[in-house]
Amino acid sequence: MVKSYAAMSKGSELELFEFEPEDLEPNKVNIHVESCGICHSDISAIDGSWGKSKYPMVAGHEVIGKIIEVGSNVSLHKIGDRVGLGWHSGYCHNCDYCNAGDHNFCSSTKKTVFSQHGGFAEEVTADEVSVIPIPNGLNHQDAGPLLCGGITVFTPLVEFNITKDNKVGIIGIGGLGHLALKIYKALGCHVTAFTNSDDKNDLLEELGADEIISSTDDSMIKAIESRFDLIISTVNVKLDWNLFLSIIKPRGRLHFVGAVLAPIETSVFSLMGGRKSISGSPVGSPENIKKMLNFCSEHKISPMVEHFKFAQINDAITKLRHNELRFRAVLTW
Amino acid sequence: MVKSYAAMSKGSELELFEFEPEDLEPNKVNIHVESCGICHSDISAIDGSWGKSKYPMVAGHEVIGKIIEVGSNVSLHKIGDRVGLGWHSGYCHNCDYCNAGDHNFCSSTKKTVFSQHGGFAEEVTADEVSVIPIPNGLNHQDAGPLLCGGITVFTPLVEFNITKDNKVGIIGIGGLGHLALKIYKALGCHVTAFTNSDDKNDLLEELGADEIISSTDDSMIKAIESRFDLIISTVNVKLDWNLFLSIIKPRGRLHFVGAVLAPIETSVFSLMGGRKSISGSPVGSPENIKKMLNFCSEHKISPMVEHFKFAQINDAITKLRHNELRFRAVLTW
Repeated sequence: MVKSYAAMSKGSELELFEFEPEDLEPNKVNIHVESCGICHSDISAIDGSWGKSKYPMVAGHEVIGKIIEVGSNVSLHKIGDRVGLGWHSGYCHNCDYCNAGDHNFCSSTKKTVFSQHGGFAEEVTADEVSVIPIPNGLNHQDAGPLLCGGITVFTPLVEFNITKDNKVGIIGIGGLGHLALKIYKALGCHVTAFTNSDDKNDLLEELGADEIISSTDDSMIKAIESRFDLIISTVNVKLDWNLFLSIIKPRGRLHFVGAVLAPIETSVFSLMGGRKSISGSPVGSPENIKKMLNFCSEHKISPMVEHFKFAQINDAITKLRHNELRFRAVLTW
Repeated sequence: MVKSYAAMSKGSELELFEFEPEDLEPNKVNIHVESCGICHSDISAIDGSWGKSKYPMVAGHEVIGKIIEVGSNVSLHKIGDRVGLGWHSGYCHNCDYCNAGDHNFCSSTKKTVFSQHGGFAEEVTADEVSVIPIPNGLNHQDAGPLLCGGITVFTPLVEFNITKDNKVGIIGIGGLGHLALKIYKALGCHVTAFTNSDDKNDLLEELGADEIISSTDDSMIKAIESRFDLIISTVNVKLDWNLFLSIIKPRGRLHFVGAVLAPIETSVFSLMGGRKSISGSPVGSPENIKKMLNFCSEHKISPMVEHFKFAQINDAITKLRHNELRFRAVLTW
């Protein structure tokens, strides 16, 4: 039996839950979970906010662990390897996107928390392709949040060919935002943090922010000349998006990685004048997760985390719900 | 004195109006207007819809004509050359954008209809850089609308590296849309026309549309798999943009060239799943206008126009206001 923590119904506290492991499929590996981060999407899964949850719901998709079993066709990993597992736990391997290395655009992806039992458990299984080796240089105790939060903010860097010469803005400095700040600073960009919490200012300077601006001070934002190549929004609240577009350079973009439920409202004139774009992206491909982990290893980037034992999982979730974590919780057995 | 047709007040019928020509500045040329197209933006200028109009308002910014005078520093044109003039009649020549050939992103552009008297006149002056030679192969009697409508729909082709292998959708088949249809078909793309006028179907097939779909038939659009690389919206009405995003491929974009006054409303989830973009662009740079005119000359592309004498300008405007033109009016003296 595999020990896990599960929500037994919509939004309930998590309880210890044991389940029978399934036979390992030929292309899958079984991972012993050393640690697992908690992401906002886990809360959405527990709460059933997206209408996709089945109960008992074992969430968790920022896994670091060691391979303890490999399927008969597995060639990418061996027992004892330290690996990471994120949002996707499998792909179809037959579509144009899988064939091109863009597995995250596959329309038949499996999700670690919706298609199976996830990482709030002693063991988790996944398609070998979705499982990524952890570089030796990485501080693996804290690395879990890179597998979802990290790749989510790293993907725009790759997709839009961001370089050290670019000016980047980050709206919202939390689980995703603080990683974006570290990553784009490590790349060498000029990075502006847009935040609505004054109490984070010292911390943001420490993290390397070149500039800190209140995300809700419209007059201060209005005064900025149009100079950003990329503004990444990590927040889940509605802001004046036309205002942010006004400080973006021609050919620049406002990019969403935070799941705002309210519609994005913009004026076509905010886009037309400077051939600007609004876009969004989800996590990233296995290839880009590898790139991201190597980048973080090379630049000594670790998520800033608070550690909890799995037995304290409900305390950690409560802190996340109240936005009291700096900046991400990581669970260990 | 220069003869022209001007609106003497907001939204009024145009009247014959004569004005004293200014001394020609060193970098400018004076063009004898052979023909001038009428664009929706001219109506906006006449009606004062954008709050920028001064009266008497001489609109008109789809000019074909011959150079009759050159300023002392002009090197790009000589008297007798046949040229075109579009939305921009001048640039600062000092900013990063002008220096990079992206003059249309210059923040100090002069506008043919707002910064001076426009093309509904016997003569019009402009910065030599904003004036583009008309290739010999082009049917110059009908070419006026290329200078605004043509470049507006050609710009996304250049900006987004569209090739014959791409699937393109065009929403709205009018002044801009019919040119988009001709241009993207000439490039070799598979082109789908989204229109709400059934009476255009025969015409659209004649123009080369591979597929014709009602732009307001939601269930028909919903049934399409996600296969478009680029959908260009030329309309000025609000549609269900999330629906159009759902039929766009990963990394594809919904691009606005039509000035919709209603806010663009989308869900961030429509963008995130496939790293999709929404964007907009204005006319184009002088370099791209040249490219577009050469492309149209090479592929024998002419706007489909109805000809009017300048004396009939109010009739032409009335037909445009009632959406009765197929597809653009061109005025001659």
